[in-house]
Amino acid sequence: LVAVAEIDLNADLGESYGAWTLGDDDSLLDAVTSANVACGFHAGDPSTMVRTVAAALERGVAIGAQVSYPDLVGFGRRDMELAPEEIIADVLYQIGALEGITRAAGGHVAYVKPHGALYNRAARDPVVAGAIATAIDRYGAGLPMVMLAGSTGLQTAADAGVKVVPESFADRGYTPDGRLVSRRERSALVTSPDEVVARVLRMVTEGTVVAIDGSVLRLGARSVCVHGDTPGAAALARRVRTALEDAGVEVRSLG
Amino acid sequence: LVAVAEIDLNADLGESYGAWTLGDDDSLLDAVTSANVACGFHAGDPSTMVRTVAAALERGVAIGAQVSYPDLVGFGRRDMELAPEEIIADVLYQIGALEGITRAAGGHVAYVKPHGALYNRAARDPVVAGAIATAIDRYGAGLPMVMLAGSTGLQTAADAGVKVVPESFADRGYTPDGRLVSRRERSALVTSPDEVVARVLRMVTEGTVVAIDGSVLRLGARSVCVHGDTPGAAALARRVRTALEDAGVEVRSLG
Amino acid sequence: LVAVAEIDLNADLGESYGAWTLGDDDSLLDAVTSANVACGFHAGDPSTMVRTVAAALERGVAIGAQVSYPDLVGFGRRDMELAPEEIIADVLYQIGALEGITRAAGGHVAYVKPHGALYNRAARDPVVAGAIATAIDRYGAGLPMVMLAGSTGLQTAADAGVKVVPESFADRGYTPDGRLVSRRERSALVTSPDEVVARVLRMVTEGTVVAIDGSVLRLGARSVCVHGDTPGAAALARRVRTALEDAGVEVRSLG
Amino acid sequence: LVAVAEIDLNADLGESYGAWTLGDDDSLLDAVTSANVACGFHAGDPSTMVRTVAAALERGVAIGAQVSYPDLVGFGRRDMELAPEEIIADVLYQIGALEGITRAAGGHVAYVKPHGALYNRAARDPVVAGAIATAIDRYGAGLPMVMLAGSTGLQTAADAGVKVVPESFADRGYTPDGRLVSRRERSALVTSPDEVVARVLRMVTEGTVVAIDGSVLRLGARSVCVHGDTPGAAALARRVRTALEDAGVEVRSLG
Repeated sequence: LVAVAEIDLNADLGESYGAWTLGDDDSLLDAVTSANVACGFHAGDPSTMVRTVAAALERGVAIGAQVSYPDLVGFGRRDMELAPEEIIADVLYQIGALEGITRAAGGHVAYVKPHGALYNRAARDPVVAGAIATAIDRYGAGLPMVMLAGSTGLQTAADAGVKVVPESFADRGYTPDGRLVSRRERSALVTSPDEVVARVLRMVTEGTVVAIDGSVLRLGARSVCVHGDTPGAAALARRVRTALEDAGVEVRSLG
Repeated sequence: LVAVAEIDLNADLGESYGAWTLGDDDSLLDAVTSANVACGFHAGDPSTMVRTVAAALERGVAIGAQVSYPDLVGFGRRDMELAPEEIIADVLYQIGALEGITRAAGGHVAYVKPHGALYNRAARDPVVAGAIATAIDRYGAGLPMVMLAGSTGLQTAADAGVKVVPESFADRGYTPDGRLVSRRERSALVTSPDEVVARVLRMVTEGTVVAIDGSVLRLGARSVCVHGDTPGAAALARRVRTALEDAGVEVRSLG
Repeated sequence: LVAVAEIDLNADLGESYGAWTLGDDDSLLDAVTSANVACGFHAGDPSTMVRTVAAALERGVAIGAQVSYPDLVGFGRRDMELAPEEIIADVLYQIGALEGITRAAGGHVAYVKPHGALYNRAARDPVVAGAIATAIDRYGAGLPMVMLAGSTGLQTAADAGVKVVPESFADRGYTPDGRLVSRRERSALVTSPDEVVARVLRMVTEGTVVAIDGSVLRLGARSVCVHGDTPGAAALARRVRTALEDAGVEVRSLG
Repeated sequence: LVAVAEIDLNADLGESYGAWTLGDDDSLLDAVTSANVACGFHAGDPSTMVRTVAAALERGVAIGAQVSYPDLVGFGRRDMELAPEEIIADVLYQIGALEGITRAAGGHVAYVKPHGALYNRAARDPVVAGAIATAIDRYGAGLPMVMLAGSTGLQTAADAGVKVVPESFADRGYTPDGRLVSRRERSALVTSPDEVVARVLRMVTEGTVVAIDGSVLRLGARSVCVHGDTPGAAALARRVRTALEDAGVEVRSLG
């Protein structure tokens, strides 16, 4: 019955910037197994990165490069038309910057996950997904790319020879064709904590999710993204983890 | 008579940014043995870095991280009061970013050289020099730090256990106590090409330079910095290199 | 036979940034009647703006706010998905910033012209053109908006009650439906100086241009944009102006 | 007995940036009479500025340009070595940007107050204070400059013919020579709400404050700065205002 024996829980972390703080990183780090660390393009100045990386390493949480379009004021949530070569350069820069900080703290970057508008674009646009995959391939450390389960972008990266980690979202609504409902829609977010927990259990133990039209999607996720920037997010992430462990699923980071 | 059998020639490179170009990098790369590549904080967007690194690797020129204060509009030439922990984080970020791009091109960052106001501050301020040295030490790749020959900052870094490369400047005036004359002074720059060549020969073969008051300073430089952003800079660098080779000095990159 | 008795010549100016210079502003300012001054979002730091504004006022050249997406590294040439309220705020900010600098020099901002990707988007997207028009309307100084002659965006702004200045481009190829050929296409730029001069004469005296398929477009332009960032641009602009004046057209700024 | 019949209460507002929020602006705006609105250099993106200005105008709170060094990641709190002409350009840019947004909302910028490190530098450095005063003078709207009561900078600006508003700080410790205790010192902040209220009452009704060594300083402030970015700040500002009104002081904005 159990679709996967183990699952990774990832969350966006280190999204403060200078004097501005966002999210309750310390609590969230106690609940997840992988930290998508902002690398300075949408959030995460170098000092914030140093603190985030130290806190993650202390807890044995895996560190991933949360790479973004260069759009600080828009938090990386606005799509931009970048040339593939620009995306490749930007991704290499961000992975490297995080690795510089992480190796100084005794660790290593373990994976790459695009952020915000770059993620959404990569999920549906093979050119953008391919550029990210090319950057990861050229970087040469065998890093996996975390991408929406079932998406075109995931397939593109896999076809390019990059390791991929299909992921699902604990609290996001799905369209019948497996996309995330846009944040501008009412059904974008699942707001009931009980429902979030139930959805994640189903995602992991059955490998499926119910889309907004009631149809059942097969996901095959190996990581589940929980969100961190809403009140109660850390507590919910903890509930999700406990429920998974109670169901006999091993919650652990990838690789 | 020859003070050193070999010398490194370094220059600032990759200091374009987006649509703006600065310097004649291709010509300069044919003359020098080490490229101080801008890492995005004072110049050098990721795409520029990719191009600069490729051009340097093609010619066998060593790649160094030219780390700076975060001051794009001021080109890193304005002193800033950063906390040591901020400097450490900024330096790690920049070294890592350049390494990310360089390893993707088949190379590695070979050294670290502070830029502009950070360089001048580090030369005289042990706290700042110490912060840079700490970053290099934590980074852990045994990278040398290029710093003004005879400066407090050079000594600080050496005392901290970091490899140092004392450098002199081909076309900068020196005060009697071994500092560079401020760019705001008339005697900051040696403008005669013949004089520049003669000074470098003396720096390398005798290990000395004549300060603005006529006194003779002993430098002990193992690298000479030639500048690149003035018209004729590349040709002058080529002349310097030829003169050194004609004098029997091997011109080659460090390490 | 003369379609218009007078015409404005506009060019992008003040597109340097910090240590980086772009274009030969002083020469170009001697040829044009309106200066589209960059306002800091794609180029043009405050000190550059001060210099550009002083040089324009000295020559009696009208000053316009060349407003852009916030994308310094991309020089405002990459389309971005901004919400209308973000565009309104960004445009007001940029007009105001330029006015602050211009009034200190004894002048006033005389018009608004979007830059790069924002221009191209506004030309075809009524939501974006409407947001810019809304900002201009709220600003309340009756500033005209310079926009592509015959475009949807021009009509949108006019319908919103904003004064509009239809413009044509001296050296850009036109599609049969009146759009500019994308810069990625070979026919994007008219490179022959003689042809540029002939095209402008025709644009102004007949009000038409020949599109890339040979069809004749009616433009009705009241301003012609000449480019400034290519070698020889200022000399070409001067030739265009002389040719117009020789043909009996008064070349003068708007308003 | 009452030193002044009326007093202004000012606070830093609009210091959010993009996705990051800072301070409880709406509550604070109910307590103060003047809003120092961040202009984008240390905080306050254009969209935040639009919201802040609208909220201030709605309540009849005066709007001031809180001008800063260009240092977003450092929140303008790190001193920088800018040339006077750079400061002039930066200040004009920021005043103008805020005025562009404010006039679109039906108001006008009423004063200028430097922020953070620029404020502290201006208080003690006549060159920096003079540059800010020059910008205000060139801007030409007769805007007053808010500056530390009794400081060199206040005098410099007054000597330059700029209107000045001497201000004191409700919750900051004073050195015997009238400077603010550095934020790095323990006595930098007065943390007891009761003491803050008592200090402000004394500042306003007697015109004095007790320095950290027990000596009594004469301040002559016409505005008192209350802080906004700490929990309870808005409530404390409201208490201060009520206490002043109960003591018969009219609390109203300047000009």
